[in-house]
Amino acid sequence: MDEKALRAVVDAVVRQVTGNLTLETARRLSEQVRAEAARLGVKAVVAVADRAGRPILVECMDDAYIASYDIAVNKAFTVTALKMSTSELKPLAQPGGSLYGIQFTNDGKIVIFGGGEPLKVGETIVGGLGVSGGSEEQDTALAAYGKHIFESGGTR
Amino acid sequence: MDEKALRAVVDAVVRQVTGNLTLETARRLSEQVRAEAARLGVKAVVAVADRAGRPILVECMDDAYIASYDIAVNKAFTVTALKMSTSELKPLAQPGGSLYGIQFTNDGKIVIFGGGEPLKVGETIVGGLGVSGGSEEQDTALAAYGKHIFESGGTR
Amino acid sequence: MDEKALRAVVDAVVRQVTGNLTLETARRLSEQVRAEAARLGVKAVVAVADRAGRPILVECMDDAYIASYDIAVNKAFTVTALKMSTSELKPLAQPGGSLYGIQFTNDGKIVIFGGGEPLKVGETIVGGLGVSGGSEEQDTALAAYGKHIFESGGTR
Amino acid sequence: MDEKALRAVVDAVVRQVTGNLTLETARRLSEQVRAEAARLGVKAVVAVADRAGRPILVECMDDAYIASYDIAVNKAFTVTALKMSTSELKPLAQPGGSLYGIQFTNDGKIVIFGGGEPLKVGETIVGGLGVSGGSEEQDTALAAYGKHIFESGGTR
Repeated sequence: MDEKALRAVVDAVVRQVTGNLTLETARRLSEQVRAEAARLGVKAVVAVADRAGRPILVECMDDAYIASYDIAVNKAFTVTALKMSTSELKPLAQPGGSLYGIQFTNDGKIVIFGGGEPLKVGETIVGGLGVSGGSEEQDTALAAYGKHIFESGGTR
Repeated sequence: MDEKALRAVVDAVVRQVTGNLTLETARRLSEQVRAEAARLGVKAVVAVADRAGRPILVECMDDAYIASYDIAVNKAFTVTALKMSTSELKPLAQPGGSLYGIQFTNDGKIVIFGGGEPLKVGETIVGGLGVSGGSEEQDTALAAYGKHIFESGGTR
Repeated sequence: MDEKALRAVVDAVVRQVTGNLTLETARRLSEQVRAEAARLGVKAVVAVADRAGRPILVECMDDAYIASYDIAVNKAFTVTALKMSTSELKPLAQPGGSLYGIQFTNDGKIVIFGGGEPLKVGETIVGGLGVSGGSEEQDTALAAYGKHIFESGGTR
Repeated sequence: MDEKALRAVVDAVVRQVTGNLTLETARRLSEQVRAEAARLGVKAVVAVADRAGRPILVECMDDAYIASYDIAVNKAFTVTALKMSTSELKPLAQPGGSLYGIQFTNDGKIVIFGGGEPLKVGETIVGGLGVSGGSEEQDTALAAYGKHIFESGGTR
């Protein structure tokens, strides 16, 4: 394989592995989640994190809850840090649950209610999405919506 | 409209938008809440926050609980940050509730028991009131009392 | 004044008071700052805060410094919290300076080097802009550029 | 001594030892400091702490710096925690000074520039006063003014 062909392969693999989760992708994802939130009458904060759990993008819809900024960012962290949605974590973190107490172990950055979803390429988690601003049901639905958009290629 | 008329309108609108929640207003509000607390035999801490959740005024009645300072300030934050009273938040944040865990997501600043009330002008939240120092029932009643005073014009 | 005229005045006043610093405005501002950063070869994090110093928008250009997220967000906080640019604060906060130590007083949220600019409408600060990712000179220039764009109406 | 006489003596001693630094005293002190601040054109935050360094009262003049809340509260803490004014501490905490580093030892609560004064009864520190909002010179002058008011009996 000549160098040019090699580079093309490497680029393609990197894109695949990272899900090409660039700022541009995050912006397109957030835009669609915000549009859906607006349709539901929710003033959401949308956070997109990279695979290390660090925010790439945070957008606060006008007049969103002040508290939602930290919650959305922390949801996006939680799902990459624990490789599961915050809805999946929820029952495990209740008193008596197998992971009860995990909400105290990481400086308050683990969120244990719905609205956070890992973003995958195949089986690989390439980032996280956190949504906060509506009821738990609404946030959960909005995060699932965003996950679907991303994983079905709707942010390309 | 001439300039003088315009300025009068602007001033009126700003007052309306902000609820005129100045330090003077906060002092008058706290004074009335403390008088009621004294009547009930409660040594209260009273905190008044602006619409961004930042304290404008904190007053600790003599011999109040040391813990009540943080609690009152955080109650005033919580109600502006989540746009509901801490009593309304309480059931949602119990184990098994839809928002259980929200008490850990914002650096411990979300209080989930009674004694915090948003202060409104019409439908707009212009600030928050936090009271701590008595039983939960007493704090809840004192915050509701203060909210009523503010919203019925008793701090003008 | 009839109701329609009144509403127009109210809208105008609200726009004036808030500088219309909505998420849409913040997105347009960040887009232009990022375009300029790209032109300079800087991978910047851009943060836009409201007048209370809370982030409305954070965008991390691909491959930006991990540290730049906190720095950009805190620059946007600093300029609203102290009503001056971080460049103006810098000399005051040097050892021996009148405010040396202010970098430690607010939970580490006060940034004392260039790259943060208040956003004004007339004399009123309506928000803050924080840029981090290049040299101090570059960040300072990028924040000044964004301030100019905003204040000259380039985000309308 | 009969019981009534004993109680009168105890009350008098307690008043003397504590400087009678009640909320009412703190309010009267703050009122006078704020009046002086207004005269100087400073929008100050005034904090009064008890002998344990805990705030009794915090008042934020309208449109004061957001950052000044933490700074004023921390100044009032610093002066009771170290039994000296923040101006006295300032040279000691500069690089090379005997206490350089103390600004990092107590969770960022030690302020090392002017505007904090201990409040004394005789040689006993009974509380602390923190002022923030103007230049360091102005804050220093305002705290000294408040200290003088308190110690010369102007809050009785």
